[in-house]
Amino acid sequence: MKDIFNFLPQEVEAFLVTTSDEFLGEYTPNHAKRLEFLTGFTGSTGLALVCKTGRNILFIDGRYTLQAKQECGEKFEIEDISNLFERLKNVKFALDGKFYSYQFIKNLEAKGLNFEIILDCPLDKIWKRDKNVSHETFNFELAGETKEEKFAKVFKYLNDCKADALFISDLHDVCYLFNIRGNYLEYSPIIPFFAIVSRETQKLISPNDVKALKYGKILFQSSAPYSIFIELSKENTVIFEKQNFLQIQKSIKTPFEIECIKKAHIEDGKAIKNFANWLKKANLEKETEFTIGQKLLEFRKKQNGFICESFAPIVGFKENGAIVHYRAKEVGAKQIKGDGLLLVDSGGQYYNKDNEICGTTDITRVFAIGEVKAEEKRAYTLVLKGHIALCKAVFPVGTTGAELDVLARQFLWQEGLNYNHGTGHGVGYFLSVHEGPCSISKRSNVALQSGMVLSNEPGYYKEGAFGVRFENLILVKEAQIEGFLEFEVLTKAPIEPKLLDYEILTDDELNWLTSYSNDINLLE
Amino acid sequence: MKDIFNFLPQEVEAFLVTTSDEFLGEYTPNHAKRLEFLTGFTGSTGLALVCKTGRNILFIDGRYTLQAKQECGEKFEIEDISNLFERLKNVKFALDGKFYSYQFIKNLEAKGLNFEIILDCPLDKIWKRDKNVSHETFNFELAGETKEEKFAKVFKYLNDCKADALFISDLHDVCYLFNIRGNYLEYSPIIPFFAIVSRETQKLISPNDVKALKYGKILFQSSAPYSIFIELSKENTVIFEKQNFLQIQKSIKTPFEIECIKKAHIEDGKAIKNFANWLKKANLEKETEFTIGQKLLEFRKKQNGFICESFAPIVGFKENGAIVHYRAKEVGAKQIKGDGLLLVDSGGQYYNKDNEICGTTDITRVFAIGEVKAEEKRAYTLVLKGHIALCKAVFPVGTTGAELDVLARQFLWQEGLNYNHGTGHGVGYFLSVHEGPCSISKRSNVALQSGMVLSNEPGYYKEGAFGVRFENLILVKEAQIEGFLEFEVLTKAPIEPKLLDYEILTDDELNWLTSYSNDINLLE
Repeated sequence: MKDIFNFLPQEVEAFLVTTSDEFLGEYTPNHAKRLEFLTGFTGSTGLALVCKTGRNILFIDGRYTLQAKQECGEKFEIEDISNLFERLKNVKFALDGKFYSYQFIKNLEAKGLNFEIILDCPLDKIWKRDKNVSHETFNFELAGETKEEKFAKVFKYLNDCKADALFISDLHDVCYLFNIRGNYLEYSPIIPFFAIVSRETQKLISPNDVKALKYGKILFQSSAPYSIFIELSKENTVIFEKQNFLQIQKSIKTPFEIECIKKAHIEDGKAIKNFANWLKKANLEKETEFTIGQKLLEFRKKQNGFICESFAPIVGFKENGAIVHYRAKEVGAKQIKGDGLLLVDSGGQYYNKDNEICGTTDITRVFAIGEVKAEEKRAYTLVLKGHIALCKAVFPVGTTGAELDVLARQFLWQEGLNYNHGTGHGVGYFLSVHEGPCSISKRSNVALQSGMVLSNEPGYYKEGAFGVRFENLILVKEAQIEGFLEFEVLTKAPIEPKLLDYEILTDDELNWLTSYSNDINLLE
Repeated sequence: MKDIFNFLPQEVEAFLVTTSDEFLGEYTPNHAKRLEFLTGFTGSTGLALVCKTGRNILFIDGRYTLQAKQECGEKFEIEDISNLFERLKNVKFALDGKFYSYQFIKNLEAKGLNFEIILDCPLDKIWKRDKNVSHETFNFELAGETKEEKFAKVFKYLNDCKADALFISDLHDVCYLFNIRGNYLEYSPIIPFFAIVSRETQKLISPNDVKALKYGKILFQSSAPYSIFIELSKENTVIFEKQNFLQIQKSIKTPFEIECIKKAHIEDGKAIKNFANWLKKANLEKETEFTIGQKLLEFRKKQNGFICESFAPIVGFKENGAIVHYRAKEVGAKQIKGDGLLLVDSGGQYYNKDNEICGTTDITRVFAIGEVKAEEKRAYTLVLKGHIALCKAVFPVGTTGAELDVLARQFLWQEGLNYNHGTGHGVGYFLSVHEGPCSISKRSNVALQSGMVLSNEPGYYKEGAFGVRFENLILVKEAQIEGFLEFEVLTKAPIEPKLLDYEILTDDELNWLTSYSNDINLLE
C-alpha cells in the first residue's frame, strides 16, 4: 500500500481515495472501483486515507459499520464519515481531482485543510486491469421530445445566462438531452461521456477531450469534477449554474413519456403478481433471500420490454428486513424458514420501442410467510396509512416535498415509531432509479411540478425482529382545482391482505385500498 | 419635505426612512414614528424614499396597498416593497444607521448599492415633539429563574464562544434576562434599554451610552442596529452569534412559568366566554367592529391580573373578516347589522404576582351573527379540522414547525382552499405576543422543544365575503413515549357549535371537541 507514495510528490504525507469514478455517479463500474481494490470494502460509498506513517483509515456511514469491519477491519481503522475533516487536519494529503466535485474541493479549502490536487491517480500505476471496457450506445426512440427541441431550450437558457456553452457532466443529463442510452452500467442505461452544447456544436466528449475545448463563457455545475473545472478554466471563463437546468427539465415527464411509463408499470406489476403467486405455493425451505431475488428477476425477464434490474434487489427475511440497505449475498443469505415477514424492494428498466413501453420501476412489497404477528400487522398498517395519506394529498403549486413528508409519518409518530430515511425520491425515465432534483423528505426544498415521478415509501424497522416498507411510484399531476396538484399512483401490484390490521383503517382508507385493487384486477 | 437635504451631505440625492426606532422592535412608540410623521402612513411596516428631484416613493407590502393610497397617495408614489432594491440603484442615498440592522446594511452592500450611513436623522431637526416620554420599570416577580441563574448560563455561553461580553439589543431579551418589565410600549411590557453582560458587570444601557463600552471580544446579533455595531467596533472586537442564545432560552418556559400561563389562560377564557354571552343577547345594531373591540376589552379588564391588550384587536365583520390584518378604526368601522360571521382576534397581558397569574394570550374565535351559510360552516369546520390535527400531533424530538405546518392545511387543500399566512408563531411570557425563534410555517427551521408556547391558527378568507380563523395557544411538552413531543392546548375558551358542519367531522375530531368543552366547563 505504501507503494503509492512512489507516485506522489515527496511532501505528501497521505492519499485520499474515494468510491467515485471520473463521472461522479451513484454507481461505479468494476474497472473503476479503486477504493475496493485498495481496501476490499464493497459498500457503495466510502473514503480511505492511506498515510505514509502506516496508519490507514476507512471512513463510512453508519449502515456499513459491520460490513467494513468484516471486509477490511484488519488493514484499516474504521471511522464514521463525520470524522473525516477532523482527521484531515494536520496532515498534508493528496487527492485525484478527477474523482471529487468542485464543491467538495471548495469545501476542503473553506475548512483550511492542507492538500494537493493531482490529476494522475497513483493506484492506476499499481492496479493492473483492462480499463477499456466495451459498451454500446443506441438511439433512444421513446423520448417525449426530439433532441433538437431539447437543444432549442438549452440555447434559450444560454441566452438567459449570457453564456456561450453548457458543459454537462451528469451522464443521465447527457443521455436525456441527446436521446441516447447505453449499457455502461449494470442498472442505469447510460454511456460514459460528458457533453458540451453551444449554438454551433452539440457533442459528446470523453474526459480526455475536455482540455481542447474553447468556447468563451461556459456554464458549469459545482457538482461536476474539479479536474474538469481546472481544464475548462484554462481557455474559458467558467460560470456556475444556480440550478441544474437539465436536471429539472429531465424530471418533468411529458404526456407521451407518462403513457410509456404507465405501460412499464403494468408489466412490472404483473411480474410482482406472478412472483407473489409463486411465493404462496413454493417450497420455500429450499430458498434463500438470494435465490428469492433471482426468482423475482426470472419473473421480470418474462415481461414485455424488460431490459435489466434498476438496482440490486433488497430481499430481507425477518430481522434482515430491518436493515434498510441490506444486500443478501449468495453465500450467507438467510434461508426462508419459519414464520416471518419477507421484505422485497426491487425494480426494473423497461424499453420496448414498438409497444411504447418504457420506464424505470421501483417497488417494495412485504410478503407474509406463515403466521403474522399482531405487532407486525399493526406496523405494516400504520406504514400503509401513511402511504395512502400521501397518495391522497392535494396541495398548492409551489409546495415542496419537505412540506408533505409528515403526511406519511403521522400515524407512526402517534405511536412513537418512525423511519430513518426520506419518504420518497425522484425516479428517472429509463434512466436512474434515483433522480433529482425532487424528493419527499424534510430536506427537500424543490417545488413539486406536474410530470414529476417520485417514490412513496414509508417504512418501519424493528431491529433484530422485522422490517416493513410499502412503496409505490407516484406521478405529480394537476388537480381538478386550478392552482393545486395531486398524485396518481403508477405502480400496479397487489397488496397482501393478510398483513392488514382492519381495526385501524378508516373507511376512506379502505375505499382507497378497494379502488387500488380494482384497478389492478381490471388489468387482467 | 426637501428641507431634510439641508441636514444631509451635499452629494446625497435621496434619503431612506423606515418605521423602526433605534430598538428595531415590532412596535414603535408614537414619538418615534418618523415614517408616519413624514408620510402620514400609519401601517406597521414601510419604507419611504425622499428624493432631491421631488420624487417620493412609499414602499409597502401587499396588505397595505389600499390604506397607503388613502393616507398618502397624493404626496407619495406607492410601490410594493419587492421593488425597493431596484429603485435604490443609480441613486446615492443616505440612511440613519440607528434604524437599520447590521444585516440590512450588509445586504445593501452585497447588492452593490451606493449609500452613505449617517447617525443623525435629519427628520429630528424638523419634527418638534417631546422625545422624553416617561415610562416605568418594575421587578418581574414571576420569573421561572432568578436573574443570577440566567446570568450564570450567559457566563457559560461566553466561555463556549470565547467572548468577554454579550451585547443584547432585543428589549424582550433584556427584560427576560434581568427579570424586569416596564410600560414603554402599549402592548409589550418592556423598557427602552439595551444591555451588556460580562462576568464582571451586568447592566442596562441606553443607546447613547454604547460608545463608552470597552470589553474586548463582544458577542453581537446581526439583527441589532448597524450604528451599535459601528460604536462597539471602535474599542472592541465584535463577533457574531450564530444563534440568538437568549431568544432560545426565553422561548423555553419553565414549569413554574407554565403554571402561571395556564392561570392567565383561564382568566382570558372567562373574558371570552362572558363576551360571547353578551354578544348573544346584545342589541348589536348599536355596535360597530370598533365598539365590539372596546366591549371585549371591558370584559378582559374584569379579569384577575389583566394589565393590557397584547395587540390591537382585529374585529372583522362579514367581508372585513377576510382582510387578514384588518384594523377597524372608530370612524368608518362596519356596523354589526344583518347575518354574517364576526372574526375576533385579540389577546391580553396578565400579571398578578400574588395569585401567580402571568402570561401573554392570543386567541381567535369566530361568532355567528344571525344565520350561518353552509359555505361558511364548511370553511370553518375545515379550518377547525386542521387546528385539531395539529393539536393532536405527536412528533419526534428535532421536528421543526415547517414539517408540521401541512397538518393544519391538509383539509383545506383537499378542497382547493388555503391561507396565505403561517399556521403559528411563538408567544412570550408576559412579553411580546410574537416571539421567536419557533413558529409553525413552511419557513421555520427551528426544532420545537418542550416548554415552547405557540399559536395554532389556521384560517380561510373568501375575499369580499367572509373570513374564518381558529386560534388557540399550544404548549410543546414531552409525549408519553420517550423521544417524542406533543402539544397541550392552553387556551380555554368556548367554541361556537352553530358553526360546525358535523358531516365532515370524524369521531376522533368530535371526541376532541367534547373533551375540550368538558375541560372548559370544569373550570366553572
